[in-house]
Order: sequence, then C-alpha cells, then structure tokens
Amino acid sequence: MTSLHETALPVPAASAVEALAAFGRFAAARGWVPATAGNFSVRLDAGHALVTRSGIDKGNVGAADVAVVPLAGPIPAGMSAETPLHLARYRADARIGAIVHVHTLAATVLSRADAMQGAVRFAGFEMQKALAGVSTHESAVELPIFANDQDTAALAERVETRLAASSVPGYLLAGHGLYAWGATMSDARRHLEGLEFLLACTLEERRLAP
Amino acid sequence: MTSLHETALPVPAASAVEALAAFGRFAAARGWVPATAGNFSVRLDAGHALVTRSGIDKGNVGAADVAVVPLAGPIPAGMSAETPLHLARYRADARIGAIVHVHTLAATVLSRADAMQGAVRFAGFEMQKALAGVSTHESAVELPIFANDQDTAALAERVETRLAASSVPGYLLAGHGLYAWGATMSDARRHLEGLEFLLACTLEERRLAP
Amino acid sequence: MTSLHETALPVPAASAVEALAAFGRFAAARGWVPATAGNFSVRLDAGHALVTRSGIDKGNVGAADVAVVPLAGPIPAGMSAETPLHLARYRADARIGAIVHVHTLAATVLSRADAMQGAVRFAGFEMQKALAGVSTHESAVELPIFANDQDTAALAERVETRLAASSVPGYLLAGHGLYAWGATMSDARRHLEGLEFLLACTLEERRLAP
Amino acid sequence: MTSLHETALPVPAASAVEALAAFGRFAAARGWVPATAGNFSVRLDAGHALVTRSGIDKGNVGAADVAVVPLAGPIPAGMSAETPLHLARYRADARIGAIVHVHTLAATVLSRADAMQGAVRFAGFEMQKALAGVSTHESAVELPIFANDQDTAALAERVETRLAASSVPGYLLAGHGLYAWGATMSDARRHLEGLEFLLACTLEERRLAP
Repeated sequence: MTSLHETALPVPAASAVEALAAFGRFAAARGWVPATAGNFSVRLDAGHALVTRSGIDKGNVGAADVAVVPLAGPIPAGMSAETPLHLARYRADARIGAIVHVHTLAATVLSRADAMQGAVRFAGFEMQKALAGVSTHESAVELPIFANDQDTAALAERVETRLAASSVPGYLLAGHGLYAWGATMSDARRHLEGLEFLLACTLEERRLAP
Repeated sequence: MTSLHETALPVPAASAVEALAAFGRFAAARGWVPATAGNFSVRLDAGHALVTRSGIDKGNVGAADVAVVPLAGPIPAGMSAETPLHLARYRADARIGAIVHVHTLAATVLSRADAMQGAVRFAGFEMQKALAGVSTHESAVELPIFANDQDTAALAERVETRLAASSVPGYLLAGHGLYAWGATMSDARRHLEGLEFLLACTLEERRLAP
Repeated sequence: MTSLHETALPVPAASAVEALAAFGRFAAARGWVPATAGNFSVRLDAGHALVTRSGIDKGNVGAADVAVVPLAGPIPAGMSAETPLHLARYRADARIGAIVHVHTLAATVLSRADAMQGAVRFAGFEMQKALAGVSTHESAVELPIFANDQDTAALAERVETRLAASSVPGYLLAGHGLYAWGATMSDARRHLEGLEFLLACTLEERRLAP
Repeated sequence: MTSLHETALPVPAASAVEALAAFGRFAAARGWVPATAGNFSVRLDAGHALVTRSGIDKGNVGAADVAVVPLAGPIPAGMSAETPLHLARYRADARIGAIVHVHTLAATVLSRADAMQGAVRFAGFEMQKALAGVSTHESAVELPIFANDQDTAALAERVETRLAASSVPGYLLAGHGLYAWGATMSDARRHLEGLEFLLACTLEERRLAP
C-alpha cells in the first residue's frame, strides 16, 4: 500500500529543490538554522508539498535531503516532527506556496518573554510594510505566540484555529522559533526577514528600557 | 507624451548600474537591506538619476532592477515610494552624486528613541572625521531625525527645508532607517558606514547607561 | 624508545584531517576561534586521536597542523596545553568520536557569571533537543562549569570525575570557553552549535532581566 | 634633497604588500575598518616601514595603496594623520615587525567609558594568554587608554613615554580605536584578536552589571 501511494507522488522540479536549498544557504549564513534546526517547504500542487528532512545540515540541502509529502499525510519516515505544522498551513490556505521555519535569537528570547501575553506587538515601524497587505507604518502588527508542544498534530490544530483570525504571515512557538510563509518562496523569505528585523529591533528596545 | 519623454532619457553607463549593484552586495552582506528594504541611486546628469526599483532583492541588483528617473519627475511605475526623497536631494544640491538608504537596527532603534528631540548627537568620536568637512573629534555632529510619513512628497519638502541648514551628509526617518549621500558612491558609502558606526556605538553606550 | 613509539602511530586518513579543517573553517567564519584559540580532535582508533597543534590559525588547518596523539600519551611537542582534556574524554567514553573546543563570547561571559553555581541551567528551549538523548523541551539541561586551571592534567581528572554523572555532551571552563563532543564530528558540531545557541539566548535573557 | 631621499627608499617585497592586504581583508570582513578607517604597517628594515595610505578601502589594499615611510620621516603626502604613531612604535622597539589599528565597537565604547581611569583591566580570562609573555589566566592585564589628539606627533610622544613601562602589546585611543603590534603580522593579528575578544567580553559583562 505504501508503494502504491509512493508511486502516486509527484516528482518535484529541480527548481523546487533549489528554492529550498537557496533559502537554506541564506539562513545558514545568518546563523538562523544552528545545530540542524529549522525546516522549509514549498507547495508542489494542490495535494503535496516538498519538505526538508530532519537532522540534515540546512545550509547544504540537496535532492536527497527533501521529500514529497501528501498534505493529508501519511508523513514519510525521517521527516521533522514539525512537518504537521507545515501541512496544516497549506491545507488551511490555498494561497500559500512556501513556508519557512528558523531559530533566531530574537525570536527565541521574545517568544519566551511575551509567552503569557500570547503575542509580540509591533507599531510604528516602516518594516511592517514588508508584510503582505500592510501599506503604512501607522498600524499595529500582532505576531501570535503559541506554547511549544511536542505533540505537533495537536499544536497544529491550536495554531490553525487562531490563525483563521490573523492576517500576519507568521507566528512564534515559545522558546522554539519563528514560522513565516507566502505565496512564493520570495514572499516567505521577505516576511521572515521583515518579522526577524522587527523582533530584533523590539529586543533592542527592551534592553534600553527593560 | 510619456513616450516622447522616455525617448529623451539618458542611457546609463554600465558603471552606474555596477555602482548600485556593488553597494547592494555590500549592504546585503551586512544585513542592512532586509526584506527587500532600502534603495540607492546615482546621478546620471544634471536632470536624471539612476534609482533601484521597488520590491527587488537589493543584494542582487542587475540592469533590469534599476530605472532612469528625471529629477523633476514623472516617476516611472514600479519605483519605491521613497524615490521623491532621492530626487529632492539631487535637486537641492548639485554636488551630490550618490544617495543610499538602508534599514539598520541601530538606526531604527535610535531614530525612535530620539524622535522627540529631532536628532541624535555625536561628540568626541574620531569616526566623526569620516564625514566630509569634519577634521577633528573635538566637535559635535547632529544627525537630523524626521517623523516618518507615507506621503513622501510632503516628507521630502520638510526634509529639504531643514537640511538647508545642516552640513551632515545624512538623516534618519523615525522607525524607518538611515539616508546618506556624497559626491560619489564611495563618499556616500563612507558617510553611511561612518554614521552607522556612530549610531551603533551610541546605542551601546545607552545600554550601559540607559 | 620515542622513535619506536612513533613508528607505531597510525597514519590518519585524509578524511580525518579534512574533518578538522572543515570544522575549523566553520568556527573561524563565526569568530569562535579568535587569536588561534580553540582546539579540535577526532578519534582514529581505540588508542589514538588526531588533534590540532597549538598556535596555528584554526580557520586554515592543513595536514601539517595536526598530530596523531596516543590516548595514553606521551603528548608530542607543539600540542596545546589542553590536549589532556581531549585524551581523558576519549579514554572515559568509547562512544566519543570527535571533540571540539571554541572560545565564544556567550560561553566566556556566562562561564564567569555562573562559576560559583558550577553550571548554567537551560529549561524550556526547543534547542535542548539538539543534544543527544533529549527528546522534549519540557526538561532541564545543566551544562557543567569547571574552574579554569593551567595544570590541565589535574583539571582533566576533576572534569572526568564529575562528567561520569552528566549526560550533557559538553562543559564550560570558567573564563575560558566551551567543550562539546559526539559520536561523529557532525554530532560534536551539532552539540556545540546547540549549546552555544542556548548560551547566547540565556545571555540575552540576563540582559533583559539582569 | 627629497628626491635623493626617495631614491634611497627600499622596494617592498610583494609579500610585505600582501601581508597588509590580507590583514585588511580579514579586518573588513569583521567590520573593523568602517568608512576607510584603520591603518596597518609592516617593518621593511631598520629604517623603514610599509604603511597603508589614507582614505582607501582597507578591505581592498593593493600595491598603489601603500607607501614606504622612513621611520625618522619625512612622511610622504597622502598618508594617514596617524602615521607618526606607527613610526614612533617601530623606533621605540626594534622587535616590532607589524602594527595594526582598527575601529571596533567594543574598543570605541570602552575607551570612552574608562578614559578617566586610563586603562581597561582584564583578569581571569584564558584569552589573556594570546598576548606574548602571558602564560596564565591568573594574572591581570592593563590595556592603556590615551586621550585622543589630532596632534598625533605630540600624542605619539605621550604614548611612547607610558608604553616604556607597559608589556601589553596594544593600547586604546579614547573614542577612536585599538592599536596592536607584534614581531610578525601573525603576532600583531593574534594580539589584536585577543585584545578585541577581551574587550567584547568585558563590554558584555558591563551590560549585565552596569
């Protein structure tokens, strides 16, 4: 049965593998995927995504380091425990074409500091305009924070329930890291860079006025 | 009429494109243009500048990512909303040959912290000598801060009114970023690097004595 | 006698030298081996390790910059004074295949700040899962700290006595730096990166709430 | 007379130029020579040094960017105002073969914070052993700080008077930057990296307990 299922999987284009590899090189150069942390994916079609495997060096991703995963499962062996978080996002929003997850210092520290409030709030930053749909700094952006949970299927459900009412293309897992997505890998990366910059600025401001 | 106007636009030399591309690679390597932020320009002649387009990866600028813009307008489609800030500077000072704008953490945080005072003040730093016309550290430099505004034409007018009385080759937009300029791209970059270093040192000193 | 002993030393495979060189390039790019600091090793067989020499640029390690060292000694001339710390680890645990030691800012500062407590404690970080044997963030990790000592043979004995009761693949020397190890160089590097990330996050949290 | 004097200048070996160029690339990659700041030199013989020119990009030094300078003067046109500080060091200590000066954030901030005390003090750091003549962390190192002065000939005299009683291979100019030297360029770089690491750690410790 597994072999029948696998036969039906689409063959990813080289460009899809390269999109994951290029993002991985970028993230590794910035130190955002330490200790093989992080995972990235791109949507292949209405029912499948290409996702990085677990435990690999994210700065050096090749064709053997990614796997085609049906959005409805089953999840192949060797995938990250966080794969359900990717799949649930793709199922919930057909416009999403790419999802990236990294471990940055600012994301980790602020996700713990503000865990009780359930969100980090940004206001008055021009960089808020890097997020799709934001056209002015005269607004406020709430980046949701979720308690971390090793039961990622249950976590995915809690995440999706709350995201239904959020227009921000990302969220934090407390003590864990940052997720961001977009219609394309370029959009996902722009959202991630924008959110990370906002988090880093906010962390600096907390240091000045703790 | 637009097509007649476009016919009259000068063809930029490859060296002008490369000046923008080289600065972009430098700025991207330092993380100063996250999420496609930032914009750079060089003057082509008395009436035109070559300016980076909006929404492109500033670390990978090619000939298709820049456009010739008449200093008096009109501004072509696809340009950054901040293009008027560049054009107004070129019109106000014929000695300016290049303008760069980046989003750094120190610039963003200090531009918010000192927004009410309207300037960040530096005194006693040898690095002040990186700014054209400064020959000793025994002086004070006031880097102007302007409130951010999505109406960049109105903002450009406020900026130019105040800059008429400033000799510092740069300014901050609150919560937004740093602008710097010079007679050549080398001068603009030196001014930007010098101002950013002064901002980073000042931010450190605030942390020690908040 | 020395010459007989040297004759018996195994010839390291090129891959063993390259493992040390590749780690050195990685560490140097991150600024973790300033001023020729740091030392790394891989186990060659049950009785020998390949160890970097003292005083060399750790970012540019070649075949002449490493030496085969018997785990039971004697230690050849030109080796780091810290070589006994490597040998003692290999002797104590046959599963260890690689050991790395670097000087990072977070490791140095926290190893001094928490020297009296004898450990830095991490809890609630997803990154704890980068350490072999840790499967959830809902746990606590204690990274041992030892007082620095120029008598490294005596220091190695104190270290091994305490490590017999520790499952964490690393330790700190106060005011000195971080050691980490693993079954392979990949594992040692993952443990080092994970511990350094945990230290950097903890240092940030101390800044926010000193 | 000038032309006779210039005829007598030694021709620097390509390796001397490359030593300056290689150090410049290293320093630029770390952001230690922003805005064309910094200057480096190597001794050519008992009476001459090869010194970087003023205003050049220190990350891209070529044969045209350096000049042979007699230790007793005169100093050629186009040299940095700080050239007398290099020459005075070479005249004072025949063992010095290379001198490097960079502008780092930690050096700038601590040189201002501790200017009144006239020194930054390090104790208990293993990294102190990176300095020639230091064999244990159980010692204290005093890095001298001098008030900055645009009259660098007078400054050089004050510096040399005090350095006669110092064994530390470096000093700070307040609000300006860090100087370090050694028998070879490798030694000078090791001393610089070691001192910068000690300064960066000390700055961190001040943030934790301001």
